[in-house]
Amino acid sequence: MEGSIRCAANYAPLSPLSFLERAAVVYADRTAVIYGSKRYTWRQTRDRCLMIASSLALLGVSRGDVVAVLAANVPAMYELHFGVPMAGAILCTLNTRHDAAMLSTLLKHSEAKVLLVELHFLETAQAALELISRMKSSIPLLITISDSDTVASDVMDYEALLLKAPTRFEIRWPLDECDPISLNYTSGTTSRPKGVIYSHRGAYLNTVSTLLAHDICTMPLLLWTVPMFHCNGWCLAWGMAAQGGVNICIRNVTAKAIFDNIALHKVTHLGGAPTVLNIVINSPLTERKPLPGKVVFFTGGAPPPPKVLSEMEKLGFQVNHLYGLTETYGPATTCTWRPEWDTLPVKEKVKLKALQGLHNISIEEVDIKDPITMKSVPNDGRTMGEVMFRGNAIMSGYYKDPAATKEVMKDGWLRSGDLGVKHPIGYIQLKDRSKDIIISGGENISTIEVESVIYSHPAVLEAAVVARPDHYWGETPCAFVKLKDGFSVGEKEIIKFCREKLPHYMAPRSVVFSELPKTSTGKIQKYVLREKAKALGSLSKKGMGKL
Amino acid sequence: MEGSIRCAANYAPLSPLSFLERAAVVYADRTAVIYGSKRYTWRQTRDRCLMIASSLALLGVSRGDVVAVLAANVPAMYELHFGVPMAGAILCTLNTRHDAAMLSTLLKHSEAKVLLVELHFLETAQAALELISRMKSSIPLLITISDSDTVASDVMDYEALLLKAPTRFEIRWPLDECDPISLNYTSGTTSRPKGVIYSHRGAYLNTVSTLLAHDICTMPLLLWTVPMFHCNGWCLAWGMAAQGGVNICIRNVTAKAIFDNIALHKVTHLGGAPTVLNIVINSPLTERKPLPGKVVFFTGGAPPPPKVLSEMEKLGFQVNHLYGLTETYGPATTCTWRPEWDTLPVKEKVKLKALQGLHNISIEEVDIKDPITMKSVPNDGRTMGEVMFRGNAIMSGYYKDPAATKEVMKDGWLRSGDLGVKHPIGYIQLKDRSKDIIISGGENISTIEVESVIYSHPAVLEAAVVARPDHYWGETPCAFVKLKDGFSVGEKEIIKFCREKLPHYMAPRSVVFSELPKTSTGKIQKYVLREKAKALGSLSKKGMGKL
Repeated sequence: MEGSIRCAANYAPLSPLSFLERAAVVYADRTAVIYGSKRYTWRQTRDRCLMIASSLALLGVSRGDVVAVLAANVPAMYELHFGVPMAGAILCTLNTRHDAAMLSTLLKHSEAKVLLVELHFLETAQAALELISRMKSSIPLLITISDSDTVASDVMDYEALLLKAPTRFEIRWPLDECDPISLNYTSGTTSRPKGVIYSHRGAYLNTVSTLLAHDICTMPLLLWTVPMFHCNGWCLAWGMAAQGGVNICIRNVTAKAIFDNIALHKVTHLGGAPTVLNIVINSPLTERKPLPGKVVFFTGGAPPPPKVLSEMEKLGFQVNHLYGLTETYGPATTCTWRPEWDTLPVKEKVKLKALQGLHNISIEEVDIKDPITMKSVPNDGRTMGEVMFRGNAIMSGYYKDPAATKEVMKDGWLRSGDLGVKHPIGYIQLKDRSKDIIISGGENISTIEVESVIYSHPAVLEAAVVARPDHYWGETPCAFVKLKDGFSVGEKEIIKFCREKLPHYMAPRSVVFSELPKTSTGKIQKYVLREKAKALGSLSKKGMGKL
Repeated sequence: MEGSIRCAANYAPLSPLSFLERAAVVYADRTAVIYGSKRYTWRQTRDRCLMIASSLALLGVSRGDVVAVLAANVPAMYELHFGVPMAGAILCTLNTRHDAAMLSTLLKHSEAKVLLVELHFLETAQAALELISRMKSSIPLLITISDSDTVASDVMDYEALLLKAPTRFEIRWPLDECDPISLNYTSGTTSRPKGVIYSHRGAYLNTVSTLLAHDICTMPLLLWTVPMFHCNGWCLAWGMAAQGGVNICIRNVTAKAIFDNIALHKVTHLGGAPTVLNIVINSPLTERKPLPGKVVFFTGGAPPPPKVLSEMEKLGFQVNHLYGLTETYGPATTCTWRPEWDTLPVKEKVKLKALQGLHNISIEEVDIKDPITMKSVPNDGRTMGEVMFRGNAIMSGYYKDPAATKEVMKDGWLRSGDLGVKHPIGYIQLKDRSKDIIISGGENISTIEVESVIYSHPAVLEAAVVARPDHYWGETPCAFVKLKDGFSVGEKEIIKFCREKLPHYMAPRSVVFSELPKTSTGKIQKYVLREKAKALGSLSKKGMGKL
C-alpha cells in the first residue's frame, strides 16, 4: 500500500528476548527468581543473562552455535534460556535422567560447542565426554554450575564467568525471526535422535498463546515443577518474563517441596505430568499444607485419569488440562473450561476436564484426520483418527533429518502420532499413541480408557496397559499396576472390576503388579512394558481363547 | 539450521482473522455479540462475517481495495472488522462525527470502493457522495446498515446482502502478514488527511499485547463504549475474538446506558477517554446502579486528571490507564499497577495511576528523547523530551504520504509529538502535546499539570489550558473551564486556587467559562481554544506585565 514502509521503527524480529529486556524496565526491582535463600530482581536477572552471553561470546561461541545444558531447575538454567540466545546461540537443554551413552549421542548429534553442567550431574557428563573423545569427535567446552556463589575465579564455573564477564556486550538479536532459539531432543530413546528445532518466532508466539489460554495474568508466582529441559518448561521460562512473574526454582519435585513452597511464596501456578499430580494426591497428610489462595495446576504430557483430576480438585487445586508435543513447543491445545459446566456432577466434570480440548491461538487448527485420506473424522466422539496440527507454533524441523521432517509435516499438517476422537462440542480426546493402541480381534482398544478405569480402583496408585501378543486375538490388554502402600488386591479382582465398567473385550486379560518405568518427564515408558508383556508370552493357545 | 523448513504445517501469516476462525470452534455456541434483544453466537458471527465477505467479493471488491464504514458500535460494525479483511480488503472506519466535507475528503483520499453507512448517518453520507460526484471523482458503492433484520431483498442493505450471499466463500488470507488490514484516519482536521495503515501482523501482535497487559482473561464481557472507528476499538474488536468474549454493542454512550448494561450483562470491561469517565462520575444518582463485580475501566486517549481517577475508584471501578496513538494501533503503554502501591494514600495512588507507564510487549521500547540529538532524557521526572516508540505495533505508514511517513519514523523511532518525562521508576508521564505546551518567559508550562489542578476544584466539570499570546512573556496560560450544574465561581477564585498549588508562573492568567469543543473520541480540541485565546488578544502591555 502506498506509504507503507518497513524500518527499524516499525519492525523487529519476534523474539522472547524482548520479554526480558522489557521486564528489566517494567518490573525492574521486582523479584524474578527465588532459589532457597537467593533472590534476583528482573534487572539483576537481565544483567546476569547479559553477562553469561558476553562470557560465552568471549569463549568463542558464535551465532548459530549450540550450547548444551544439563541442569535441574536452578537459576542458571533459567538464565540460560535468555543468555544463550543473547549470544546468538542455540540452547540445547538435556534431560537430566539420561545416562552417559545417551548424553554422548546427543552432544555429538547437536555438535554442542559448550556444555554447562550442574555439579550434581558432573560425573555422568564427564563419562559422556569420555565416550565422545573415544569416538574422536570434538569435545564441548565444559562449564560447571555450582550451587555456591563463591567459586574460585580460575575455575570454569558459571558464577566465576559472571564475575569476570566483559561489560557492554551487545545482544545478538536474531537476523530473521525464524532463526533457531533452542534444540529440544524428544524423550524417545532411539538410535536416531530427534532434535526438535524451535525458532524465535515460534517461541514468542507459543509463549503468548499459553499465557492467554490459561489466564496467566501479570505478576504470577510460578513454582518450577515442570522441568525446564522439557520444551523449555512449556515455554513458561520465557512466559514469566513476558508477565513479570516470580520463578520459584526447586531441584527436586516432592510433595513436601510443593506444599511448602506454595504456602511460603503464595504460589499461583505450577504444572506437571499426571505423575506429579499423583505425587500430590498420594502425599502423606503430614506433608500437606492449606493452599493460600487460588492455585492453578497445569497438567500435560499424558492424559490425566479422571480419578486423579477429581482428587486434585478436592485438594483445592484448579487443574488446567493442556496437551501438546515437543514438536508443538509444548502446550498446543487447552481444555477450555466452560462456566456452565461448574454445576455438573463431579463425575461429569472430570470426564470433560480429561478432554484435550482445542487449539490455542498460536496454532491455526487442530484436527483429527484419517492419515491416509486426510479426511477429518466426524464429531461423533467415536471415530478415531490421527491428531494433526498446523500453525506458527509448530517446530522448524528435526535437526539434520530432512527426511523425517518432511515426512512428519507432509500435506501441510504436523502428524502427532496420537490417535483420538472429536466430540460433538468439537473438543478432541486422545485415545492412544498410535504405537500404543491395542488391536484385539480386529477391535481397537484405547489403553487410556482402560487405564482410566483401573485408576478408579481405590487400591491403585498407578496403571499402564499395553498389548500382549495373543495367538487367537492377535493382541490382548495386559495391565501393569502399582498398588498404594498397605493395599493388596489380586489379578482377578482388577479384571472383574474392569469387566463391570468396560466392554468385555476391553478389560485386561492379565495383570502384573510392579513398579512402572518412567521417563524423566513422568511419562510411563510403555515400550519397556510392551517388552515385558511380550516376554510373558502368548496367553491363549491357538484356536482356544474365548472371551 | 539443517532440517529447518518453512511450509504450510509450520507457518501462517499472522492475522486477527485466525482469532475468529478459532472462536467459531472453541466458543462456538457461546454469545459473541449482544445488541438490544439481538444475540449472535461465535459460530453465527463467523458465518455472518464470511457472508458479508462473500457478498463484497461478488460486488467486485478485490484484494487490496478499501471498504469504508460509517457506523456506531452496532453488530455490523463489529462484523466488518473481520468480513472486510476476509474479502482481502482494507477496512476504513470513519469517524461518525465528521461532516460531509470531511467525509468526502477521506473517501476520496482512501479511494474507497464501497461505503457502508448506518441509516442514522445516511443523510451526511449522501451529501458527502454528492460532493465527490461534483469533484468528478469515482463514487463508492453505497450499502446501508439498517437496525432491522427484515429488509427488502432488492435493497442494497447489509442484512439483505447477508441473506443472498453466496455460500462456500474461501477466505482471502493475507499473502504476507505485513499486508494492510485497516486504514485509520487520525482525528486531526487538516487539509492533508493522515491515513494510518495497520497490517495484519501489527494488528495481531497489538491485540495479544493489550490482552496480556490488562489481564483480559478468557470469556470477558466488554461494553462497547470505545468507538470501534477509533483504532479499531483499540484493537479490542479483534481481541474479543481471541479471548471468546461477549461484545455488548450500544449506539450511544450515556451514564444510564453504561450503568444499565453493566448491571444487566455483568460487564467485566469497558473503556473510554477521560470524557467518558467524566460522564460516569458526574451522572445523577438516580442513573447509577451498583457494580455486579470487578469492572475494569480502561482509560486512554488523553491523560486522566487525578481527581477523575479517584472519583472513578470511589464508584468501584478498577481504572487501567493506557496510552498510545493511532500510529501505535492504540494502546502502547500501560501504567502497570504494582501491588505494593495498594496501601498508599489515595492522593499518592492517583498520582501514580496518572502516569502513562511503560510499553506493552508489542512495542520493543518506549523512550523519551531529545528530538534533535536523539539522546534519552534522564529518569529524573523533570527533564522533558519527546515520547518515541519502536516495535511491531507501529503503523506501516501514512497512506499516500511517503514524506510524512519517513519524517515521523526517521532515525528508527516513531515520534509521537507528545512531550513527557521519565520518573525514577522508569515510567513515563506525558506533560503535553508538543504543539500544546506553553512557553512563558522561557519556562515550559505543561498544560496537563495546570489542568489537573483546576480539575481538583470542586466546582469544575471540565478544564483545558492553552497558550494566550503575551507581549511581555511570549505566552501565558489561559484556562477554559466548564462548571458543574449549580456551581458558580469567578475567574479570580480559579486563579487563586491554582496559585496555591502551583508555581506562580504556571497558574492561569485568564479564565474563560464556556463549553469545551471536543472530537468524537472525547478529546478536547485545543486548536479551537487556542484560536479563541488568540482572539482575546495579548494580556500584558509591552514592558508592563509583572508576575
